[in-house]
Amino acid sequence: MRVAIVGVGQTPFARNSRMSIQELCFEAFRDTLEDINLSPKEIEASIICSAPEYDKQRSPAGLISEYLGLTPRPTLCAESLCSSSSTGVRVGYGFLKSRLHEIVVVIGFQKMSEISSSEAQERMGRGADIQWESPFGTMMPAGYAMFARAHMHKYGTTDEQLAKVKVKSSKYALSNPLAMFRREVTLEDCLKARDIASPLKMYDCCANADGASCVIMASEEKARKITTVPIWIAGIGAASDTLATPNRTNITGLDCAIQAGKQAYNMAGVEPKDIDVAEVHDCFTIAEIMAYENLGFCKSGEGGKLIDESQTYIGGKIPVNVDGGLLSKGHPIGATGGSQIRTIVHQLQGRAGKTQIDGAEIGLIHNIGGVGLYGNVTILKRE
Amino acid sequence: MRVAIVGVGQTPFARNSRMSIQELCFEAFRDTLEDINLSPKEIEASIICSAPEYDKQRSPAGLISEYLGLTPRPTLCAESLCSSSSTGVRVGYGFLKSRLHEIVVVIGFQKMSEISSSEAQERMGRGADIQWESPFGTMMPAGYAMFARAHMHKYGTTDEQLAKVKVKSSKYALSNPLAMFRREVTLEDCLKARDIASPLKMYDCCANADGASCVIMASEEKARKITTVPIWIAGIGAASDTLATPNRTNITGLDCAIQAGKQAYNMAGVEPKDIDVAEVHDCFTIAEIMAYENLGFCKSGEGGKLIDESQTYIGGKIPVNVDGGLLSKGHPIGATGGSQIRTIVHQLQGRAGKTQIDGAEIGLIHNIGGVGLYGNVTILKRE
Repeated sequence: MRVAIVGVGQTPFARNSRMSIQELCFEAFRDTLEDINLSPKEIEASIICSAPEYDKQRSPAGLISEYLGLTPRPTLCAESLCSSSSTGVRVGYGFLKSRLHEIVVVIGFQKMSEISSSEAQERMGRGADIQWESPFGTMMPAGYAMFARAHMHKYGTTDEQLAKVKVKSSKYALSNPLAMFRREVTLEDCLKARDIASPLKMYDCCANADGASCVIMASEEKARKITTVPIWIAGIGAASDTLATPNRTNITGLDCAIQAGKQAYNMAGVEPKDIDVAEVHDCFTIAEIMAYENLGFCKSGEGGKLIDESQTYIGGKIPVNVDGGLLSKGHPIGATGGSQIRTIVHQLQGRAGKTQIDGAEIGLIHNIGGVGLYGNVTILKRE
Repeated sequence: MRVAIVGVGQTPFARNSRMSIQELCFEAFRDTLEDINLSPKEIEASIICSAPEYDKQRSPAGLISEYLGLTPRPTLCAESLCSSSSTGVRVGYGFLKSRLHEIVVVIGFQKMSEISSSEAQERMGRGADIQWESPFGTMMPAGYAMFARAHMHKYGTTDEQLAKVKVKSSKYALSNPLAMFRREVTLEDCLKARDIASPLKMYDCCANADGASCVIMASEEKARKITTVPIWIAGIGAASDTLATPNRTNITGLDCAIQAGKQAYNMAGVEPKDIDVAEVHDCFTIAEIMAYENLGFCKSGEGGKLIDESQTYIGGKIPVNVDGGLLSKGHPIGATGGSQIRTIVHQLQGRAGKTQIDGAEIGLIHNIGGVGLYGNVTILKRE
C-alpha cells in the first residue's frame, strides 16, 4: 500500500501576524481543503508540529485540533525543532502504512514575532547544546558560520558563492506571493550587508516569521477519491547527529542529511540525478551549498561551483528552492517542512505557475532541525 | 505482522532527583536492557516523550538520543502532556507496522522538582485552556474536582468511595520499590486530610515527581530473538476531547477515554470482562472511578460501588493499579505511560512479584493527557 499526499496549503509567512496560532493553522487547513474533494469529517487524526516555548498555550495539539473541528479524533504534538513538520509527515506515514488511519492531517506552525529579538535568541540557543555551546554564543548563526568557515578553508568556497544563493532565492521569491521578502537583491547588496556571524552577513541568514502549513496524507485507496493528482511518498529518511558540534567528525557538511538522503534514495529506488526539483533547508546560504553536496547533487566541495554555474536555477541541472526557500520566504520553524512539501507537490502536480519546472516527476525535500541535529529527506513522485 | 513490547524499564519516581534528564533516561534505558537479549546498536530509532517547558534544554530528543548512544539514528519528540509516552508507543507502533523500523525505543521522562510549586502550577495551567479556564483557577485539581462534584451529584458517589481508591493505592505501593509514597494510609487519614480543591483532599491527588520510563518495541520477527516472553500490542486506541471543559457534553466521565477504549477493544477483539489486569490514569481518585466506568469495568455511576466492593483489588473482578498507580508512585508526566506499560508487561510475563495476578493474559493501560484532553488506551496480550 502506497501513501499519498493529497493536499497542501499554507498561510503567508510574515512578521507580526495578527492571527492567533489556531487562526494561522485554520487558514493553512482551509487553503488545503479548498481544491480537494475531502470533508474534514473524513480526517481520522491530526499531527500538530511546532517548536515549543513560543506559545503561551502548552501542548497546542488539543487547542488546534478542536479549532479545526477535528475533536474527538486523536491528535498529538510531533517535534524536531525546524524540521518538525517533516517529522510529522514521518509519523503520519507510519499511521497510514500501519492502517491505524486512512487519512491524516499534518499541521505545522510557528508564531515567533510575539517575543522580543533577545528572547528569540535565548530560546533559539536552548534548542542547541545548553552546556558548552549556546551560553558562549554558539547558536544557529554562529554554528552555521563555523560550517561556512570550515567549508571555505577546506574547499575554497567564497563569499560570492554564498551570496549567489541569496540572489537566486530573492529572484524566485518574486513569484511567490506567500514569501515574506519579495525584493530582488544583487550580489553587491549581499556582499556589503552587515555581518551577523562572520562570514555570514545579513542576507546569508533566514528570518524568524509567523505562519502555518498543512499537509493532508491518505492511503492509496482513499487518495484517488480525494484528488486526481495524488503525489506519492516514494522515500522517507531521517537521521540525527550529536547535539554539540564539537562531537561531530564532519563540519563541512551535515551527516544527518547525508544519512537521511541515503535512506530516502534507497527506499525510492532513485539517484540524485533523477531528482527534477528540490527544496532544501537554506536557513543560511552555506546550508544550501552543503545540501547540494550532502544530497549528491554535486561532489563534496563543489557546491560553490554548482551555484557559480547557475545549475540550481530553473533550466539548470537541478533547480533548488524555486519558491524562494527559507532565505526569502521566512522561517516559521514548525511550518517550514510543510511549506517545502507544498512547493514540491505543486511542482509535481504542474501547478507551480511561473516557476514550474517542465515535466517534473520526482521531487525532494531536505529539512533540518537544530544546528544540523535532525535530518529529514523526503522524496515525492508523481504517478 | 504483529508488534511486540520486548522490554520495559523505569527509574524510581521521586522528588528532588539529583540526576539530569539525560541521566534519568539512561537509567530507565539501562534497566530495560538488563534482562533482554538486545544490543543498543540494533535499536533503529528513538521516540522521546515529555511535556515541554520543564527543562532548560528545548527539544530534548537530540540530547537524550546522543546520551543513550543512539546517534545517528532518527529521533523525535512526541507529546500529549500526561499521556506522552503512550503517544510515543502509538508513534512507534506506526513505525514498526509500516516497516520503517524493526526495533524502536520509547523513552518517557519528566523532571518536575527543579521548579518551584508556584511555577509548576503556572505551567500546569498553561497545559489547560489558557483563555477562560486556567487564568481563573481551573487547572488540573479544579478540573477533576468539578468532575468529582458532578459525579457525586449525578450518581451519589461519596468522599469515602474516593478515599478507598487511595487506600488501595497505598496498600499496593508497599510492594513497589520504585514508588514515591510507600506508606499505607487509612480511610480516616484520607478523609481528614486538608482540602486541595473540594471535594478533592490531599490524598485524592497525585504528586509531581522526577523519573523516566522506557519501552522497547519490535516487529514480530525481531521480538522472538530479544525475549522469550514478548508481549503483543493487541489494541491501541486514541482520542481527544475539547480543551476547555465548558465545551464538553459529559462531565461525569472522559469521552476521550470512552472513545479510545472502544477502539482498543475493537482492535483487540476483546471485551472489558476479558481484561485480567489494568493500569488506569488515577491522577486523582475520581479519575480512577471514572476510568472503571469509561472502560466498561462497571456501568456508568457504579464506579463507587466497584471500589466499595473491593472488586478492583487483587482477587476482585478486575484488579486495577496494583503498582500503586499515579496516586502513590508519583506522576513524572512524560514517564507515566511507560511506567503503566511496564507494570502490565511484568504482570503478563508473570514477573510482578507480590502483586502478581495469577494467570494474567490480557492487560489494559489507560493514560490521559490534560484535563481529559487526550485519551489513550492500549491492550496487551501474552502469547
